[in-house]
Order: sequence, then structure tokens, then C-alpha cells
Amino acid sequence: MNEKIGILALGHGSKLPYNKDVVTGVAGLIAKKYRNVVVRTGFMNMNNPTMKEGLDAFKGTGVTTIVAVPIFLAHGVHTTEDIPQILGVSREDRKTTIKLDGRDVTLVYSEPLGVDELVAELAFKRAQEALSSN
Amino acid sequence: MNEKIGILALGHGSKLPYNKDVVTGVAGLIAKKYRNVVVRTGFMNMNNPTMKEGLDAFKGTGVTTIVAVPIFLAHGVHTTEDIPQILGVSREDRKTTIKLDGRDVTLVYSEPLGVDELVAELAFKRAQEALSSN
Repeated sequence: MNEKIGILALGHGSKLPYNKDVVTGVAGLIAKKYRNVVVRTGFMNMNNPTMKEGLDAFKGTGVTTIVAVPIFLAHGVHTTEDIPQILGVSREDRKTTIKLDGRDVTLVYSEPLGVDELVAELAFKRAQEALSSN
Repeated sequence: MNEKIGILALGHGSKLPYNKDVVTGVAGLIAKKYRNVVVRTGFMNMNNPTMKEGLDAFKGTGVTTIVAVPIFLAHGVHTTEDIPQILGVSREDRKTTIKLDGRDVTLVYSEPLGVDELVAELAFKRAQEALSSN
């Protein structure tokens, strides 16, 4: 069976629209850039789809593995405790199996964005934009 | 007078070490990648240096303009209300003048990271890393 990868972009959720807008926007860019991957979103609280609804949204897509990627800058209590609990993964193993369309699908939990050249580059770009608009 | 740019990488702050580690790590990467820029950090709460201490840390560097860049993924009440208030910038103008070493220094407040191809690329990289370690 061919591997087909799904990415569940996990958001914190917020009463304000910004967090959902960013997570949804980033998910859209992932889907556009990596066209062989099925991308869905799920929010920890305050927004829909919830994380469980996000997993359900892979039904009918034929994905064999889903990677849940926290669209969070850094670890914190949400990424180390709350989200693993909702996903049913342990902090050691970071992997479980779920049922979708009656089939076993591997669910893997990734690291958040963290320290990376790409974040440094983006922060510098935001600084340049602010300078050029002032 | 030649322009000399400072970047103040603004962090949320946290009781856990992760947020400070990421903001400090990203600030280090900015300084390494863009060597003509003076980079300092400042945290909104719970960590040091505070934002005001971060601004003071540009003393003696000769910067003529400082851009405060929120190392936040999305806007929220902190980036739209709390941080502008601490920096003394309005939401419309996003710019003020501060005194450093007895000179006027322009302080500009930038957008947070937001939706960008670079975030999509990094999220995909984290997904790939999780897949290859499982």
C-alpha cells in the first residue's frame, strides 16, 4: 500500500480571530506548496474545527499516516501536556494508531516550530517591512 | 549620520523555559545571519530582560533606529494592546522616539510572524522530522 501523508495543523485557538487566521492561512500554504499531502486544521480550544473534528476530516482521503504539527512557536504546557492527552500519545512515544474509515492510521505528533533559521529570516523580514513603511 | 539598526526580539515570557529559549535562540540566529544589525531581547512578562531592560541594552551600541519585532506567531491582545502600551506606540502610528545615551532613537513596532511561506516550510520540516524519527 502506498503511503499517503496527512498533516493536521494544530492551533491554540483564541476568542480573537488572529490565531485561527494564521493557523488556517499556514495550513493553506502547506497544502499549496506540498500538493501530495492532505492538510487539515484542528484547534485546542475556542475555535472550530476541534482537534478531534480535524482528525475526522481525514475520512475519505485515504491517508495512511497523519502528522499532527503544533503551529506553536515554542513548547509549553499545551504542547507537552494538553495536546498529547487529546491525541492519545505519550510524551515518550509520540505515536499512536487511530481508526479512520475502518482502517488503522498512524498518528504522529511533531515538535512545534521552535528555533530555526526560517523564523530568524521571517522576523528580519517583518523588521524590514516595518522600517520601509515608516 | 549613518543609520544603524537594532532589532528588539520581543517574547511573551513563560514560567517554563521553552518560550525564552526559543526567543533567545531566534535572536541569536538573527544576529548571526545579519551581522550589521544589533540584536537584543525583551520579555513581556515572567522572564528577564524585560522589554524596558531590552531597550536599555542598546545603550552604547550607537543604533539610530530600533525595530521591536514580536516573536509571536499571531496577533492577540498582547501584541495589539499590552506591548504597544509598554513601548509607548499607538496602534495607528506604530512609531515613537526614545532617548538612548542622550540621543533621539526612533522605535518602530513591527508585525508578528503571521502567515508566511517560511512558516509553512518550517511546519512541513517538523512533520518530516517526526516521520523520519518514527
